[in-house]
This record gives sequence, C-alpha cells and structure tokens, in this order.
Amino acid sequence: MPKTLMKPFRPIYPSPAALITSVAPNGKANIITLGEVYNLSVASPVVVGISIAKQRYSHGLISQSGEFVVNLPTAAMAEQVDRCGCLSGRDVDKFRVVGLTALESLHVRPPLIGECPVNLECKLMGVRQVGDHDMFRGEVVAQHVEESLLDEQGRIDVGRLDVLCFVKGQYWSLGRKLGEYGFSGHAERNADDQ
Amino acid sequence: MPKTLMKPFRPIYPSPAALITSVAPNGKANIITLGEVYNLSVASPVVVGISIAKQRYSHGLISQSGEFVVNLPTAAMAEQVDRCGCLSGRDVDKFRVVGLTALESLHVRPPLIGECPVNLECKLMGVRQVGDHDMFRGEVVAQHVEESLLDEQGRIDVGRLDVLCFVKGQYWSLGRKLGEYGFSGHAERNADDQ
Repeated sequence: MPKTLMKPFRPIYPSPAALITSVAPNGKANIITLGEVYNLSVASPVVVGISIAKQRYSHGLISQSGEFVVNLPTAAMAEQVDRCGCLSGRDVDKFRVVGLTALESLHVRPPLIGECPVNLECKLMGVRQVGDHDMFRGEVVAQHVEESLLDEQGRIDVGRLDVLCFVKGQYWSLGRKLGEYGFSGHAERNADDQ
Repeated sequence: MPKTLMKPFRPIYPSPAALITSVAPNGKANIITLGEVYNLSVASPVVVGISIAKQRYSHGLISQSGEFVVNLPTAAMAEQVDRCGCLSGRDVDKFRVVGLTALESLHVRPPLIGECPVNLECKLMGVRQVGDHDMFRGEVVAQHVEESLLDEQGRIDVGRLDVLCFVKGQYWSLGRKLGEYGFSGHAERNADDQ
C-alpha cells in the first residue's frame, strides 16, 4: 500500500470524548468536553491525565480548586457531549442547558454527571505545559460505576458500556468484540519482557 | 441508575492498541503493543505520549536510542497486535514471528510497520515517572498515511481506517459514525471559552 507524508494534527486515535466537571470558587459547577484523556499509572496509584489549552475556562477552575471529575459518557449521549464541547461555561449553566444531572461526589467538590455510567473523582497532582496544551495529572480517589453494567463476577461488561469513541474530530460508537488480551494464544509469555 | 464504588484499574477507555517500534544498539528492531498512547500537544508542536512500565524491554531501547515510531494498526490486525503484546523481543524477532513488514523511516532509526495505515516517527523529548509507568513524550517529526485512506479533499476518511479500539483489556472494532464535532448545532460558540 503506497503511503504519503501528511502534516500531523492530533494524530493519535481513538480517544474518549469525556466530560470533565470542575467548580468555580463560588461553587458553580462547569463541564468541558475533552478528547485528550488517558491512563498514566494503571494501578498503584491510579493516575489519569487530561490535556487542556490554557485559554479554556475549565483550565483556571481546575488549577484553582485542585479537583476534577472525569465522567465517561455513552454513545447515546453524543449530542449532549458535543453541546458541552461547544457552549461556554462562562455564560451558561451547562448542566441546565444541556440537561444533565449533577450528583454529589464523595471526596471532591466537582459533581458527578448522573447520566454517565462511569465517574472518576480526581485530586490534582500537578500541571505541566506540553506544547500547546497543559497536562493535568490527577489521582483517582474514587470510581463510581453503574450497577447495571456489572456481570455476574462483578466486572464491567464492555458490551453494556455503550462506549463513545472520538476519532479525528468525529464521534463513533463501538463495533464488535475481536478478542481479549492474550486471545492469540501467546499470553503464557511474561508480558514484562516486551 | 444506581451506582456502586469500584476499585479503579486503568479506568479510562477507549484507547488505541498501538504498535511501538524501537531499535537496539545493534540495530535490531523491536515492537511493543501499548494501550496507553495519547495526544499531548495537538498542533505546534505535535507531541504524543506513551506509557511504558520500567521492566519492559522496549523501555530500555527507547531510553537509549531517543527514538520511536507509533504505528496505528487496523481491527483486521487484532491477532497480530495481541501476539506482539504477548511475545518477548528479548527472545524473538517479532517482525518475523508475527509476520509484519519493516519499512525504513525518514528521520529515525526504528522502522515503520508497513501493514499499519498510519505511522508517526517520534523524537524523544523526555521521560518522567508517573506512578507505576514512565511517560515518554515524543515530538512527531513525520506522519505517513496510506494513500487509499484519503478522500477527495486529501483528508483521512475515518470510515476507511478500520480503527482498532482497546477497552478494558479487550480489542474492539469501531461501529457507526454518530456525528462530527459541532453537529449539535452549537459550534458557533468560541470553543476556547469552555
């Protein structure tokens, strides 16, 4: 297959289209839609990263309060996710305008979005500029999961998550399951040796 | 929908299942499969991040050489991606064993994987420990894209990418397109104001 050189722009795909909640000093909550949300440390501790441009309203809110919540929406919520990405929290109450439910968090002030099946309460560990975005590292201090998503072993059933994918500026649903890690039959190897 | 508290583990989804190529001092190339691959700076410069545990063979190779390539595979390649994630580059030549084609890069020593429709040549900018993984920041110095993926305007057609998604230890294909950024009709707002 012949290839061509292309100027890159946000080249990695897929990513989540996640809703990040934060609070202003007066307690008013805001929502920002971000594509750049990722795992940095998977287990001990659990650390996630989010990348936000300096001029965004949420950049200041999270920097000031030191707290945020990552809310993972469903494909059925794509239009609400897009509206949260296009409206400004400086002008409007996005919860009211977009029709989302704020629920109280356990350990942080920013609220959980009730409609999102998974919510991660995060305490800010640090901020660092990387090119045109700032990377916020957050330790996950609580994970809330909708009970109806759990299988009989108490694990999250990916098929019930209705995952929303963000690919090159577009929202997509998930398709079909191709396999689990190790399905090629080579999982007996020590994965640390890669 | 009632929710329950769950101990988090690698909580963000979806992510790519990407193939990262690197080279040993003797010039031998290796491949590692990673789920934690993300955009850090989207345009100027273009910076991507990859998270690798210290004990992985590729951790040392990339640290020593200061170069890596992010190869984004297709859903049709899921079994090869899984094999690259389970075999050890200390013992085997993964290109040969898994049946992948190494093509010469333009600016770095690690090869492109010919079967992957998108390849990003990266120069290492820095490494930083974040919990149980180390984050490698790489500036993208060249993006190669399969010509057959481009539409009439010369843009990447997401529908032809055959995107491979990694969700909670499982490989999935992409489903259907739900909309483009701004499809909810609110894109006239200044997105900087979020």
